[in-house]
Amino acid sequence: MFRRHCIKLMSNFNFKPSLQTSSFQPSVWLEFSPLSIQYKAVNLGQGFPDFEPPKFVTDALIESVEKGGLNQYARSAGHLRLVNAISKMYSPLFKREIDPLTEIVTTVGASEGIFATIQSVVSPGDEVILIEPYFDIYTGAILMAGGIPKYVTLRENRQKGQGRSSADWKLDMNELQQAFTEKTKLLLLNNPHNPVGKVYSKQELEEIANIVRKHPSAMVISDEVYEWLVFDQNKHERFATLPDMYERTITIGSAGKTFSITGWKIGWCIGPKPILKAIANTHQYIPFSTPNPAQEAVAISIEKAQSIGYFEEFKSSYQKKRDKLVNTLTQAGFDPVVPQGAYFVLGDTSKIQLNGEDGKNTSITGMGKHLRDWNMCRWLTTEIGVAAIPPSAFYSEDHQHQSANYARFCFCKKDEVLDKAHENLLKIKSHPNSQNNN
Amino acid sequence: MFRRHCIKLMSNFNFKPSLQTSSFQPSVWLEFSPLSIQYKAVNLGQGFPDFEPPKFVTDALIESVEKGGLNQYARSAGHLRLVNAISKMYSPLFKREIDPLTEIVTTVGASEGIFATIQSVVSPGDEVILIEPYFDIYTGAILMAGGIPKYVTLRENRQKGQGRSSADWKLDMNELQQAFTEKTKLLLLNNPHNPVGKVYSKQELEEIANIVRKHPSAMVISDEVYEWLVFDQNKHERFATLPDMYERTITIGSAGKTFSITGWKIGWCIGPKPILKAIANTHQYIPFSTPNPAQEAVAISIEKAQSIGYFEEFKSSYQKKRDKLVNTLTQAGFDPVVPQGAYFVLGDTSKIQLNGEDGKNTSITGMGKHLRDWNMCRWLTTEIGVAAIPPSAFYSEDHQHQSANYARFCFCKKDEVLDKAHENLLKIKSHPNSQNNN
Repeated sequence: MFRRHCIKLMSNFNFKPSLQTSSFQPSVWLEFSPLSIQYKAVNLGQGFPDFEPPKFVTDALIESVEKGGLNQYARSAGHLRLVNAISKMYSPLFKREIDPLTEIVTTVGASEGIFATIQSVVSPGDEVILIEPYFDIYTGAILMAGGIPKYVTLRENRQKGQGRSSADWKLDMNELQQAFTEKTKLLLLNNPHNPVGKVYSKQELEEIANIVRKHPSAMVISDEVYEWLVFDQNKHERFATLPDMYERTITIGSAGKTFSITGWKIGWCIGPKPILKAIANTHQYIPFSTPNPAQEAVAISIEKAQSIGYFEEFKSSYQKKRDKLVNTLTQAGFDPVVPQGAYFVLGDTSKIQLNGEDGKNTSITGMGKHLRDWNMCRWLTTEIGVAAIPPSAFYSEDHQHQSANYARFCFCKKDEVLDKAHENLLKIKSHPNSQNNN
Repeated sequence: MFRRHCIKLMSNFNFKPSLQTSSFQPSVWLEFSPLSIQYKAVNLGQGFPDFEPPKFVTDALIESVEKGGLNQYARSAGHLRLVNAISKMYSPLFKREIDPLTEIVTTVGASEGIFATIQSVVSPGDEVILIEPYFDIYTGAILMAGGIPKYVTLRENRQKGQGRSSADWKLDMNELQQAFTEKTKLLLLNNPHNPVGKVYSKQELEEIANIVRKHPSAMVISDEVYEWLVFDQNKHERFATLPDMYERTITIGSAGKTFSITGWKIGWCIGPKPILKAIANTHQYIPFSTPNPAQEAVAISIEKAQSIGYFEEFKSSYQKKRDKLVNTLTQAGFDPVVPQGAYFVLGDTSKIQLNGEDGKNTSITGMGKHLRDWNMCRWLTTEIGVAAIPPSAFYSEDHQHQSANYARFCFCKKDEVLDKAHENLLKIKSHPNSQNNN
């Protein structure tokens, strides 16, 4: 006892995190995933499939482990079979021959791809333009590079007489133009967009490219991890295919999203040789290489996917799930923003009234008690039995109020889970807090 | 033609990598791995096993994929079964209860563990002390955090009348003390040491701890990825178990080294709650999480390993390989530094004469032509048929000459490969460049 006390007194150590990471907090997932479990809610929160990946994908991993020879370090910039498969799949889509050895780097998920890219191009003091709402990991990576995030906001301009759609969420091109300065090094585009579900039109991308073109040192990360999930008559246009844009665009892809294997952590960066060389060099010092058996399995999966019509089937199964959730949210009075792509729907919660401690007293981490959407999502989780995510997690602190009346629901879930969500959400109509109640 | 020409002229984009990564180059592996293949040399270069992992380890991965439920995102700070297994294995070794939920973060190999730790604790302008020779990824991570590397060198003080040993490589404690300033945030220890094979004695670690203790904001990364490979009568002492040191030490471990699965990329950080909380927050924004099926498989492997005596068997098989390679190098006139731990041997090349273009004209990347050890290792690869790594890759630029007469040979290779290396290396005795020739 005495000895221990003595040591404590003698110790002069006091830990402070590094400046660039000192603002980091546990993320929104650490509130809603445990809350959802605790209240046995239907979890439409975190964006990962709750079903197993296709059998040809898991079989490919088993085969890769069994055949041996793939259990040691992969080539740092990417396992050869995988970069070849990626080149073969994307070259026609990019309308150019993508060199597998110099224009592709495979990464530990899209996350590390984005991180490594930002480290490779953003110097301390450089400005990076984010389009709100944006995926929350972008800011962490920017701050670690010493970059300064600047925000431009997608705003909903609902068309009269038409159904609500993610196409109504527009970028003000003047606002975007004004956000660019001499210090702008990078613009982060997410297309199809999480959480709005927006799929940028070719005209919108061309307008963005016209602004980028005016800035000699500006680059673009086009995060296209939901590239295969574009619904109805919408078409996925690739920013890198616009005139002059390939040379300054890094396109990010994800096997996790494409094959429902978010836990395998395989992603990739595609772009021009000088930038990809820098990313390859940087990637050496982060994880050194990407998991090897899983890279082989993803290569096999890509090789097979096209011949068995996987991408069409993948899209149509998700379109059915989207329609199911949109229908539920419409019936339950959430007047949903129908997404053109990705696997999320923004619901409108403005007809639900929160009273007193509603949504505050159930917080696990204490985060976001001052924000309506956080309290709303907690209330939906604990009172209605469906977990959703507050979109303000995807806004800068000053702009978090903009998403006060939205909740993000995810539809990459089993049909029976979506059915159970339907059942729970419909209860809201007779709930005293709802102005929808009949 | 004209249109293409026009576009090229109009394009004003010019790529420059970020300041913090602008010095990054392809690493030493990109010279010697291809060179070794091109000349069909026996590859004792890069430090990964050329044999398959134990069957219980690959079986565990197959089982993890087959049973399902593990293909989506892992818990960001680490899959529960794995952090529990790590806690159970290490708590007795650390002589304290290690909390699996707050004192462990699993990472994408030891590499990302080191990277995330450095980002979490080093602010721009902070000084980080490296002990030369050091593993080459450390500097990349320090530069990306804006840190300033300071170098202290292990020097060989050969004991007269005794065999040459890695124990002869000593740190000058005065030099270490003088390297510490008010700005020192971190000391990077590697124990057992790559490439020297040194295993620090308890007394040496205590002397280091006495210096660290004087600096209220100094922390230590103890990179112990070779912890199970400690030979003869040597004992692995853990820096974190010294008085007062746990609260400021992050210990790094690796499933890749421990189970011969360097390609799976599973590692971990162990340390006090406040620092590990910061690392967990940072790790969220790098890969977000670590591959999930492989985490389950490593958990199963750790659970099994102790009961089947795996660690003892692992160590004794490597000790035999070490003895085999040491014997070869002795016979071939390389007067080896017998390693106490890890899986490398430094050979002394001072009795080999390089003439004219020897070792220069075969370079693939053009790197290191001004350095004797690079040319020597190229010459060994192309002329003698055994690839080794020049240790100057593990020194700062100003100190690279210190390793002029060493080459690093790796013994984590099949016995037949070590036998073939023996055959090739013995040829050196009759080579005209060798002063050993009889």
